Amino acid sequence: MMAAGKEHSMAYSNIITLTTDFGEGDHLVAVMRGVILSINQDAKLVDICHQVKAFDVWDGAFTLAEACGYFPPGTIHVVVVDPGVGSRRRPLLAQTRRHAFIAPDNGVLSLVYRNESPVEVRHITEQAYFRQPASATFHGRDVFAPCAGWLSRGVAPEKLGPVIEDYVRLEFAAPRRVQDGALEGVVLRVDRFGNLMTNLTLDDAPELGAHPAAPVRLRINRRQVTRVVEYYGMGRPGEPFLIVGSSGYLEVSVNRGSASQALGADAGTPVRLEMGGGSSS
Amino acid sequence: MMAAGKEHSMAYSNIITLTTDFGEGDHLVAVMRGVILSINQDAKLVDICHQVKAFDVWDGAFTLAEACGYFPPGTIHVVVVDPGVGSRRRPLLAQTRRHAFIAPDNGVLSLVYRNESPVEVRHITEQAYFRQPASATFHGRDVFAPCAGWLSRGVAPEKLGPVIEDYVRLEFAAPRRVQDGALEGVVLRVDRFGNLMTNLTLDDAPELGAHPAAPVRLRINRRQVTRVVEYYGMGRPGEPFLIVGSSGYLEVSVNRGSASQALGADAGTPVRLEMGGGSSS
Amino acid sequence: MMAAGKEHSMAYSNIITLTTDFGEGDHLVAVMRGVILSINQDAKLVDICHQVKAFDVWDGAFTLAEACGYFPPGTIHVVVVDPGVGSRRRPLLAQTRRHAFIAPDNGVLSLVYRNESPVEVRHITEQAYFRQPASATFHGRDVFAPCAGWLSRGVAPEKLGPVIEDYVRLEFAAPRRVQDGALEGVVLRVDRFGNLMTNLTLDDAPELGAHPAAPVRLRINRRQVTRVVEYYGMGRPGEPFLIVGSSGYLEVSVNRGSASQALGADAGTPVRLEMGGGSSS
Repeated sequence: MMAAGKEHSMAYSNIITLTTDFGEGDHLVAVMRGVILSINQDAKLVDICHQVKAFDVWDGAFTLAEACGYFPPGTIHVVVVDPGVGSRRRPLLAQTRRHAFIAPDNGVLSLVYRNESPVEVRHITEQAYFRQPASATFHGRDVFAPCAGWLSRGVAPEKLGPVIEDYVRLEFAAPRRVQDGALEGVVLRVDRFGNLMTNLTLDDAPELGAHPAAPVRLRINRRQVTRVVEYYGMGRPGEPFLIVGSSGYLEVSVNRGSASQALGADAGTPVRLEMGGGSSS
Repeated sequence: MMAAGKEHSMAYSNIITLTTDFGEGDHLVAVMRGVILSINQDAKLVDICHQVKAFDVWDGAFTLAEACGYFPPGTIHVVVVDPGVGSRRRPLLAQTRRHAFIAPDNGVLSLVYRNESPVEVRHITEQAYFRQPASATFHGRDVFAPCAGWLSRGVAPEKLGPVIEDYVRLEFAAPRRVQDGALEGVVLRVDRFGNLMTNLTLDDAPELGAHPAAPVRLRINRRQVTRVVEYYGMGRPGEPFLIVGSSGYLEVSVNRGSASQALGADAGTPVRLEMGGGSSS
Repeated sequence: MMAAGKEHSMAYSNIITLTTDFGEGDHLVAVMRGVILSINQDAKLVDICHQVKAFDVWDGAFTLAEACGYFPPGTIHVVVVDPGVGSRRRPLLAQTRRHAFIAPDNGVLSLVYRNESPVEVRHITEQAYFRQPASATFHGRDVFAPCAGWLSRGVAPEKLGPVIEDYVRLEFAAPRRVQDGALEGVVLRVDRFGNLMTNLTLDDAPELGAHPAAPVRLRINRRQVTRVVEYYGMGRPGEPFLIVGSSGYLEVSVNRGSASQALGADAGTPVRLEMGGGSSS
C-alpha cells in the first residue's frame, strides 16, 4: 500500500474540503475555517457535510467517499469525526495520486484506502504545525485544520511526520452470496428523500444493468420489490421499486415518496436479493 | 420573450449560486461543488438554499426569485429541484439581461420568466458538456453543474443547445379582487420566525403604503388583523399585525413571536384583505 | 474604551464573516451574500453560524465570541441578530486592533467589548453606503451587508459615522463566589453532542488545571459530578465527568453520550462548584 514518495510529491491546491460531525448549530466549524484562513488567506474552503452522525466513523467514511472523488487534483480533504480526540489515536495524512486527506486514525479513511491505490499514510507528529498549546478536546482546530492550512501553503508532506503502515482500516460490510445464489446485504443509508441505499452494487448483481433488467426480487422487511426502473419518475405512486443510484449502489425508492416509510426500513435493515426468478418464496 | 442574441452575449463571471432540495445532511451538494471546481477552479460557489421542500418546484421558484436579483451581473444560478430527473424533461439555460439560469424545464424558473424581460431560453442538448456517462438519477452532478462550470469558463451559450419557446411556465397564484372590492389571496410561505408571507403586494393594496396606512382588515382563519406597522418592533406582545415585508409582500407577523402559531396559519391558508373600512363582518 | 484613530486605521481584508439568526431554510442569508458580492466581487464570504436562536442577542454574542478570534487580521464580521430592526436602535461599526464588527446596537457585541481593548465604536449614519431605499424590516440586506461590502472595498471607517461611547453593553452572567467558598454558575449552552458548557473557567477554579486535578464536586440538578478528565475518551460509558473544554470553560460531558440528557440539564440550569473537598452534602 505504501507508494514511492515521488508519486505523491504533487503540489496541493488551495481547495480544502471539510467533513465533520459538528452540525451547523454552533461555532465549531467556523473556528476551523478561521484557523485555516489565518494560515492561508487564499484557501478555498468547501463544505462536504457537517451533519455526519455524531461519533459515527462509518457514516463519516461513507459521506467522504461519496463526494471526495469529484474534486480536482490537488484538493486537501479534512475529516473530523473524532470520538477519540485527546487519546492516543494518531492524526494522519493520507496521500493518494490526486488528493490529500487529513483525519484521525480511527478508520474514517477506510473507503479511501479501499478505493484508491497507492495510498501513502503518515502519522502527523510535527508539533510545529499545530496550534500551540494544542488542546486535548478540539484537534479539528489545533491539529487537523492547521496542518491542512500549512499543506496548502506548500509545506512538504514528509515534514508532517513518518510513513506508517499500521493505520486503522474498518471492514466494509460486503454483501454475502448464500447457498441458493441469493445475495444478502444491508441498507447502508437513508437519504433525505427516503431512498434506501443498499450495499449491493451492479458488480454484485450484473443482471440489474441489462436493458431491460433481468427478473430480480429484493426481500426487505417481509415485503418484496421486483420492479426495476431507470429513473425515479418511472415509478408508480406509492410503489417501491429498485434503481441503480447515482453512486452505483442498488437503491429501493418510491417516486416522490419515501421508501423508508413505505417499507419501515432504515440504515441496518437486512435485504436479500434473489436473481433469475429461480428462488420463490 | 425571445431576445436578440446580442443582448445576451455577456461574459459570465465565476460566481455560481446553488439552489437545491438536497438538504445538507449528505454528500449531494458537495458532489456538485466538486464537479464545478473540477471544471473551473476559480469558480466562486455561493449557496442560495438547499432546504427547498423536497420535489416542490414552486418552493424552489420562490426561493430563487427572492435571492437571485441581489447578485452581481454575470452571475450563473444553478437550480436543482428536479422530481422528473431522467425523464424527458429538458435541461435549460435561461439568459436574462444580467444573469444565466441553469435548471430543469419543470417551471422552477417561472418567476424568472415573469420578472425579467427579455429572457432567452435554450434546451441544453450538447452532451460534450455533460459528465460522461450521464446518469438517469443525478443530473445536478452530470448535467447542471458541469454546464454551469463550462459557462463560467467562457463557453458560448449557443454551444449548449438551441433556443426554444415552449418551456414550462407555472401560473403564479395571483390575488383575486372580488365583488365587494376585497382581495382574496393566500399565504405563500412561513419563515423561520413564523411570519406569514402572503401573495398580496403594495401594488395590490396601495393603501398600505400610505403614512399612516389607511384602514384595512385582513381576515385569516376567522380572525382579523387590522393594525399596520412599519417595523416588527412596533408590534405589541402577542398581537398579530400587518407589515410590508422586505420583498414587498404583505406579511402577518407577531413581534418576537410566531404569527403562524398565533393564527394557526400555514402556507396555503387563504387570506382576505378588506380596504377602506367599508366592508364590515 | 475609545482608541486613538490611528490604531484602527488598518486596511480590512476581503474576508467577511456572517453570523445571523436567519436559519438556512430560506433566501435571507443568500440575499446578504448577493448584496456584498455586488459591491465587492472579491469578497470572501465565510459563515460563522446562521442558527443563532431567533431574537436571542446573547446567543449571538456567544457564538460570535467563540469563533471571531480565530480569523486573520483585517477580517470583517457581520452580525445580524436584530429583533429591534427598524426601530431607533443604531447600526454600529466596532473596530478592535485586528478586526471590524458590523452589528445592531443591542448588545450582541458585548463580549467583543469585554474581550478586546481598545475598541472604537461608531454609529453608522452615512446613508450613502446603504441600499436605497433602506427597508424598515431587513437591515441585514440594506445596512449591514452593504457597509461590510464598502469597508472591504477600502472605504474609511470614519466615513460611516461618528464615534460614540454610549453603545449597549450587556452584563455577562459571571459566576459568584458564595460564603463557603463554592462557586455558583450556570449552564451557558448545550452543544450538538449534549455537552454542557458552564460559565466557570480555569481562572475561576484553578484547581481544575492541576495534574491530576484537585478534588472538586459540581452539583447540578441534585446530582454531583466529581471526576475530572483531560479528554472525552477517558470517560466511562454513561458517566458524567468534568472537562475544561476547548474554549476554556468548564464542561460537563458524557463520553459518546449526552450530558444534557443524563442530567436533565439545559442552558440556564444552575451549577455549583465546590472545591477542596471541604464542603460535604
